[in-house]
Amino acid sequence: MENFVFSNCTKIVFGRNAEEQVGVETAAWADKVLLHYGGGHIVRTGLKARVEESLKHAGVSYIELGGAQPNPRVSLVREGIKLIREQGIGFILAIGGGSVIDSAKAMALGVQYEGDVWDFYSGKAEPKEALPLGVVLTIPAAGSEASTGSVITNEDGWLKRSCDHVILRPKFAIMNPELTYTLPPYQTACGVADMMAHIMERYFTNVRDVDLTDQLCEAALRSIIKHAPRALEEPQNYDVRANIMWAGTIAHNDLLGTGRIGDWASHVIEHELSGIYDLAHGAGLAIIFPAWMKYVYKHDVARFVQFAARVWGVDPDYHDPEKTALEGIRRLEEFFKRIGLPTRLADADIPDDRLEEMAAKCTGNGTHTVGNFVKLTEADVLEIYRLAV
Amino acid sequence: MENFVFSNCTKIVFGRNAEEQVGVETAAWADKVLLHYGGGHIVRTGLKARVEESLKHAGVSYIELGGAQPNPRVSLVREGIKLIREQGIGFILAIGGGSVIDSAKAMALGVQYEGDVWDFYSGKAEPKEALPLGVVLTIPAAGSEASTGSVITNEDGWLKRSCDHVILRPKFAIMNPELTYTLPPYQTACGVADMMAHIMERYFTNVRDVDLTDQLCEAALRSIIKHAPRALEEPQNYDVRANIMWAGTIAHNDLLGTGRIGDWASHVIEHELSGIYDLAHGAGLAIIFPAWMKYVYKHDVARFVQFAARVWGVDPDYHDPEKTALEGIRRLEEFFKRIGLPTRLADADIPDDRLEEMAAKCTGNGTHTVGNFVKLTEADVLEIYRLAV
Repeated sequence: MENFVFSNCTKIVFGRNAEEQVGVETAAWADKVLLHYGGGHIVRTGLKARVEESLKHAGVSYIELGGAQPNPRVSLVREGIKLIREQGIGFILAIGGGSVIDSAKAMALGVQYEGDVWDFYSGKAEPKEALPLGVVLTIPAAGSEASTGSVITNEDGWLKRSCDHVILRPKFAIMNPELTYTLPPYQTACGVADMMAHIMERYFTNVRDVDLTDQLCEAALRSIIKHAPRALEEPQNYDVRANIMWAGTIAHNDLLGTGRIGDWASHVIEHELSGIYDLAHGAGLAIIFPAWMKYVYKHDVARFVQFAARVWGVDPDYHDPEKTALEGIRRLEEFFKRIGLPTRLADADIPDDRLEEMAAKCTGNGTHTVGNFVKLTEADVLEIYRLAV
Repeated sequence: MENFVFSNCTKIVFGRNAEEQVGVETAAWADKVLLHYGGGHIVRTGLKARVEESLKHAGVSYIELGGAQPNPRVSLVREGIKLIREQGIGFILAIGGGSVIDSAKAMALGVQYEGDVWDFYSGKAEPKEALPLGVVLTIPAAGSEASTGSVITNEDGWLKRSCDHVILRPKFAIMNPELTYTLPPYQTACGVADMMAHIMERYFTNVRDVDLTDQLCEAALRSIIKHAPRALEEPQNYDVRANIMWAGTIAHNDLLGTGRIGDWASHVIEHELSGIYDLAHGAGLAIIFPAWMKYVYKHDVARFVQFAARVWGVDPDYHDPEKTALEGIRRLEEFFKRIGLPTRLADADIPDDRLEEMAAKCTGNGTHTVGNFVKLTEADVLEIYRLAV
C-alpha cells in the first residue's frame, strides 16, 4: 500500500427535499452569490424557483449566469470571472451536473488569479486559492460534487484539459435523488459509465496488497451494475436513483483511491474524443475503456481475472486465465450496450479519420506517455483508438 | 434509503513515517498543546521522542498528561481540563488508541463548559463547542481517530457512557501502520472485533434498499476477516497492518452508515460488561455480538442469510434459511475464537451473578429500550447476557 493523505470536507446533504437546505448552507459562506447553471431544464422542473426561494428565505442575494454546456467552455468561464469581480461575489452556487460544477470550479480558480484561467488547465499555473463553491446536483455522473477535479474545454484548438487540487472541493453538495427522475435514459447511462470509469481508473493499479480498497471498488461497481438497468426501467424508483446517486459521489471522492496509484489513461484518451466531437464524456468512456482493457490486460492478467470474477461473477477458468480476463472485458462491453451506450466509435457516428491527430494531442505530440498501469506512448494510444473503431 | 448528512473533515495522513508530519499538522492549529497519552509504551518504542522532536521542529510547545487507561476514567479527564485551563492550551494531541483519544475528546468538550464534563455523557448537556484535537494513532480498533464518538467511564458507579457529536471529530489523524507492529496478538484481535462490530452495528438495519452501503460494509468485513489472522501470524507485515489500520477508520467514520439506521444494542450491552469488569471493549463485543445475533436473527432471517453468504461465503441452504443464518453466526463466533478472543463470559472469567444488575443499568432500570434493529427491553437484554454465559 502507498502512503496517502485523505481529506474530504464536502458536506453531503442527501435525500428527499434536500434542496430546501440550500439557503441555510449557502448563507454560512456568503450573502451574495453567483448562481451558475446550464439550460432551461432546472427552470422547467421548478428546481431553480425552489433554490431561489430557499436563498431568499436565508437572506442570500444572487446574480445569475446560465448557459454552461456539456464539455464546458473556457469562454463562459472567463465571462463568469468578470461577472464575479464586477459584482463583488463571494461564493458560487452551481446547479446541475459535472459540466456546470466544473465550470464553476474554473471560475472559482480564475477569480483569484491575475492571469488567464486556462493557465491552470494548460499546466502553466498551480492553484493556490479559490472562491468557495457549493452544489445542487442534478446529474449523478462526474462526481465533481465532492471531487478535486475540474475539466474544461478550450474552443481554441478544442483542447479538453483538467485541473486537480484539493481547494476545488465544493463546500457542500445538495443531493436529492428525486431530481434525477427526469434524466433521460441515455444521460442516465452516460452517468453510470462515468462513475464506473472513475472506479476502474483507480482499480487497475500496479500497487500490490491494497485488498481493502480493491474490495470497496468491487462493491461499488457491483452496486452500480445492479441498479443501472433498473434506473432505466423504473426511472422514478427512489431507492434505485439514490443508490446510483450516492455511488457517483463515492466513486470519485478519493476514498476508493487511498493507498493506490490510479491509471487515468482512458480518461485522457477519451478527452480527445469528446473534446473534438462533443460526445458525452460517459459515452466516450464506454467506447474507450473496453478498448484500453483489450490493449493492456496482458500486463496483469491476474488483476483482470479478479475483475471478471468479483465484479462480473465470471466463474474463472483456472487453466486459462486470459480467457477469464477477456470474458470480464466482454461483460463490461455487453453491459454498456445493454444500457444503451455506444462501445465503438462507429456506434457514435465518429469517423476514424482523425485518430492520429487525437493520439498526438493526447501525448503532447509524443512528448509524454499517458497512464500509470501501463505507460502508453503515442503509438499505443493510436492502437487503442483503432481497437475502438 | 434514509435521508442523511455526511461530513467528515478529519485529515488522514497515512503511511510509513507519517508521525514526522505531526509537528506541521499541529502547528496549523496551535502553538501550545496538551500531549495526552497512556502508559510507557510510546516512550519505550521511541514514538514519544519522535513526536516531541517533530513538535519542537515546528515551534510547538507542549504540556504532558499521561496515564489514560483502557476504559478511560472521568477523573483523569477532569484533571486534564484543569491543566488545559491553567496553562492556556489551545489544542490537544492524543497519542494512542481509542481510550486516549476518547479521553482527549472529553477534555476538549469539558474545557469549553462551565459545568462538569460528565453532563455530556449522562445526557444532561448537549455539546456546543470543543477544543480542536489531533491524533497519532497506535491501535487500530475504536475508529475514534475520525469518529464523532467518545466513551468514558465514571468510577462513581462504574458507568460507561458515550457522547456523540460532529464537533468531536479530530482535525487530523496520523496513521503509520508500522506503529502497530508491536501490538500484542490479544490487543490486535480486540481491535479487529471492535472494528467489525462498528460495521455490523450499521449493517443490521431495518432500512430497505441500501444496497450500496450493504456492499461496502460486506467488502470491509471481508477484508478485515482476511487480514486479521495474518496480522497475528506476521505482525510486521506492513500491508497486512495497513489494510487493518485503514479498515478500522473506515468502519467508523460514518460512511458505511449513510442512508441507514444502525442498531448499536450490542455496544451498549457490552459497555456494562467492560464498565464493571474492565474487560477490553473488543473482547466484550466478541462475547456479546454472537449472543445478540442468536437472540434477534428471527427478526430478519433474510438479512442474516445475506450476512452468512456474502461475508462468510456460506453456500445458502435455500430450503432452510434459518440454518444458513445460524451458520453465519457460527462462523463469526468461530472466527473470534480463532483469533484468540473470548466468545462467552466464562472464557473471560466473568461470573454470571450480576447479569440482572447489568441488564437494569443498560436500560435505565427498564425505563428505555436499547437498539434499533430490534428494540430490546430489560428482559431481552438479560436473555442476551444469559446466552453469553
